[in-house]
Amino acid sequence: MRESGEERFIAALRAIATSPGARGLADDAAELRLTNTTLVVTHDMMVEGVHWLPEQDAADVAYKLVAVNLSDLAAKGAMPQALLLGYMLGDADWDARFAQGLADAVEAFGVPLLGGDTVSTPAGSARSVGLTAIGRPAVVPAPSRTDARPGQALWVTGELGGALAGFEAMQAGSADAALTRPFRRPDPRIEEGLAIAPMAGATMDVSDGLLLDAARMAEASGTTIAIDSAAVPVCAALADRRIDAMTWGDDYELLFTLPESKEPSFAATRIGTVLPRGDHRLLLDGEPPATQTRLGYRHG
Amino acid sequence: MRESGEERFIAALRAIATSPGARGLADDAAELRLTNTTLVVTHDMMVEGVHWLPEQDAADVAYKLVAVNLSDLAAKGAMPQALLLGYMLGDADWDARFAQGLADAVEAFGVPLLGGDTVSTPAGSARSVGLTAIGRPAVVPAPSRTDARPGQALWVTGELGGALAGFEAMQAGSADAALTRPFRRPDPRIEEGLAIAPMAGATMDVSDGLLLDAARMAEASGTTIAIDSAAVPVCAALADRRIDAMTWGDDYELLFTLPESKEPSFAATRIGTVLPRGDHRLLLDGEPPATQTRLGYRHG
Repeated sequence: MRESGEERFIAALRAIATSPGARGLADDAAELRLTNTTLVVTHDMMVEGVHWLPEQDAADVAYKLVAVNLSDLAAKGAMPQALLLGYMLGDADWDARFAQGLADAVEAFGVPLLGGDTVSTPAGSARSVGLTAIGRPAVVPAPSRTDARPGQALWVTGELGGALAGFEAMQAGSADAALTRPFRRPDPRIEEGLAIAPMAGATMDVSDGLLLDAARMAEASGTTIAIDSAAVPVCAALADRRIDAMTWGDDYELLFTLPESKEPSFAATRIGTVLPRGDHRLLLDGEPPATQTRLGYRHG
Repeated sequence: MRESGEERFIAALRAIATSPGARGLADDAAELRLTNTTLVVTHDMMVEGVHWLPEQDAADVAYKLVAVNLSDLAAKGAMPQALLLGYMLGDADWDARFAQGLADAVEAFGVPLLGGDTVSTPAGSARSVGLTAIGRPAVVPAPSRTDARPGQALWVTGELGGALAGFEAMQAGSADAALTRPFRRPDPRIEEGLAIAPMAGATMDVSDGLLLDAARMAEASGTTIAIDSAAVPVCAALADRRIDAMTWGDDYELLFTLPESKEPSFAATRIGTVLPRGDHRLLLDGEPPATQTRLGYRHG
């Protein structure tokens, strides 16, 4: 029921968001075309109990909120320019930790916090935080998930599964900051996004799981995407759980396509090929994924 | 306690938001200066039970969310360019009404919805909605509340008290849409803001009550502002409750200062004078407001 409620609401928004820059709300970020410049703009929210656990360090929540928004800019090959925060106040300790994480992120990514709004939280209510990120794209139009073309190769940055391994380590009470970091403080691929934009076909970030996001890219592009599972780079902790690493999400790596003749100038792994649209959006080792495989996390 | 928690958090944010465009977070909107353009950006949130009542029509909540953000742009003399929505899903009927109100506002104000995020709402939780508005200022730097200078005249657009009269009518079950409209669907003063920007001193919108907002303007400018209460335009329904009309807020009129030699090109009323900073930020009919007078609504 909730899923279809969200789908209906987004369909209603789509009828409102008719400007070309909105791209039918199919992308994680939009283009704002002004007379003499173009910007990429995005807004992501996080909700207590949905996107973070009440016991999680608020500093990590803040850092991740910045990181996931900047990851949306990275997927559009845009250099971050400014942040705006929407914040529901909690207790003073939580607020102070949140401000610390925000300061850490602003320093790490070199993007200014420009303003926003703070509001009070009704008693007993879960809190939500929202962030708007504004960036300047390296090329216009910025790459989107619709631009995969048959014959292109599919690439991914980094390793998958780090966020899941980190989440599980936190659940188990691990104090290994390096192991939990990919879940707590993901690294948006800003430089890679800027580098790839001028030559990329489709680009998106892997927020909801490689298989689901690749299927979305195929759907948006009208193609079939074939992934070679053995080629997918998976973090050491999940070496024996490749499907989990490919479906859990939250990794914020970049998934992109390139002509066969080109290779990225940075570390990335070729994991598949774009094909003309066949019976399935996605092929995993030549077959459609088993119907019991959940392709990824449909976040809400 | 909560008030000081918010103040502490904002002080922490201020230490992070050090770029000149953030203006020390003292303003409702920020300037984003890019290589070849400057934008004005703002983000306002509304929370169920704080900014709207559960029984209120969601279409009006959406419309007001857009209006209050555009009012922040109006105060900076900026033409709206784009909106981004952060939305916590509710039940399907509420969501549908919200989308309708959003469509109404997008049409009324001619500003495109470009994107945003929808997230689910934990059971039993109050919902929050956030909106980012991006505009282009008529002049750079855009006017701010810091620019009142002794000798200038103080002006206000429209009438005050309409929102309070509308709120009270709604509470009393009135079906008079015209009477309740100023509370449900305020009109941001976009054209007036654009017209005044090239010649204005200080400009801000009256969101929290005339007396409180005027005191804030005086504080930010290092001046004293003297208001002649008999000159303040008050809506007919509150003719006998002038202090209520000057303190309840939610009217979204523009409050601005001009040199004595100038008058606005649109309908507005002169209500006071800017003086050198004396013992008090605010004088009402020559005296500091009675200590029991609540100057306005400190929203949170």
